[in-house]
Amino acid sequence: MSLAPWRSLIARALHRNRSLPYARYVQLATVRPDGKPANRTIVFRGFLEETDHLKFVTDDRSEKTQQIADCPWGEVCWYFPNTREQFRIAGKLKIVDRADETLQKARQQAWQDMSEAARVQFAWASPGQARADLETFSPPIPSQSDPLPQFCLLLLEPIAVDHLELRGDPQNRHQYHFNQGTWRVESVNP
Amino acid sequence: MSLAPWRSLIARALHRNRSLPYARYVQLATVRPDGKPANRTIVFRGFLEETDHLKFVTDDRSEKTQQIADCPWGEVCWYFPNTREQFRIAGKLKIVDRADETLQKARQQAWQDMSEAARVQFAWASPGQARADLETFSPPIPSQSDPLPQFCLLLLEPIAVDHLELRGDPQNRHQYHFNQGTWRVESVNP
Repeated sequence: MSLAPWRSLIARALHRNRSLPYARYVQLATVRPDGKPANRTIVFRGFLEETDHLKFVTDDRSEKTQQIADCPWGEVCWYFPNTREQFRIAGKLKIVDRADETLQKARQQAWQDMSEAARVQFAWASPGQARADLETFSPPIPSQSDPLPQFCLLLLEPIAVDHLELRGDPQNRHQYHFNQGTWRVESVNP
Repeated sequence: MSLAPWRSLIARALHRNRSLPYARYVQLATVRPDGKPANRTIVFRGFLEETDHLKFVTDDRSEKTQQIADCPWGEVCWYFPNTREQFRIAGKLKIVDRADETLQKARQQAWQDMSEAARVQFAWASPGQARADLETFSPPIPSQSDPLPQFCLLLLEPIAVDHLELRGDPQNRHQYHFNQGTWRVESVNP
């Protein structure tokens, strides 16, 4: 496959902002069952091999997993401070849980790619519930190879990307749309 | 009035992150007319006097203004890099345009509080439309006192705030809910 035309722009932005660990943090918007929006910071974990799908991880006990089951659409907002540019990436979200049959290997790899500190958080008490006793946050260290049952790989399959560069004078803005297997790009007003 | 209990936490975070201009950038999630989420970076411009309402600005020709007219709910995600903490602020959005009768003074003040560079962007060609000629991005400098017709003050009236501190061990997370005129706080699992 050939990469989407916006992939090289993301790669360049990641490189030029590599001094900032939080340049890999993005904000993911989803829709709640009551129709209101939700928004939270998540960590970008690379692209799924041979695809343009963004990888994240989530806990199947989290609110966002439930929201995505109800409405599988998401939009990531990704601001890069050093280069002063923003990517808005809209697309379909896919939860890869322990029952998924086609992407189990990718789920396992995502687990193995995380730090131990990140893995152990999946053994903590249920997120968003009334604060549990302190000892529940010191669980046994989970296996490095086999994901805990509640661990999910979260994929975003982009259908539209809006790239804004604040540094231009005037600023530059390009919109990419995926249609019938092809990405088209258009220059628009910022 | 007394300030909401999370106001001092925001003030502290702004102070401790004051070395980063982009610590005033937040991501606002809204819902599109087709029910899918939208997400973009906007600039925090303080609180509306005598209230806990967050101030932003927008252009009435932008997609977000149209989205908000259709669905007035929003959620801001605000990540502070230096202190490694996140605020998720959910609430009702209100557009204060040139026809608004009660908050016209606040709209005018927001215009005057902006830099000239920020004000002139409201005189640019319509955002999101096919790229206009270069000269349309060098319009006459607008008045410093009177807002352009398309300029809107955007208010977020919070009803829920979720504060996550990544630095704790374990992390700390508190949820604030506004109910019958009172804020209640609960400690929850991160």
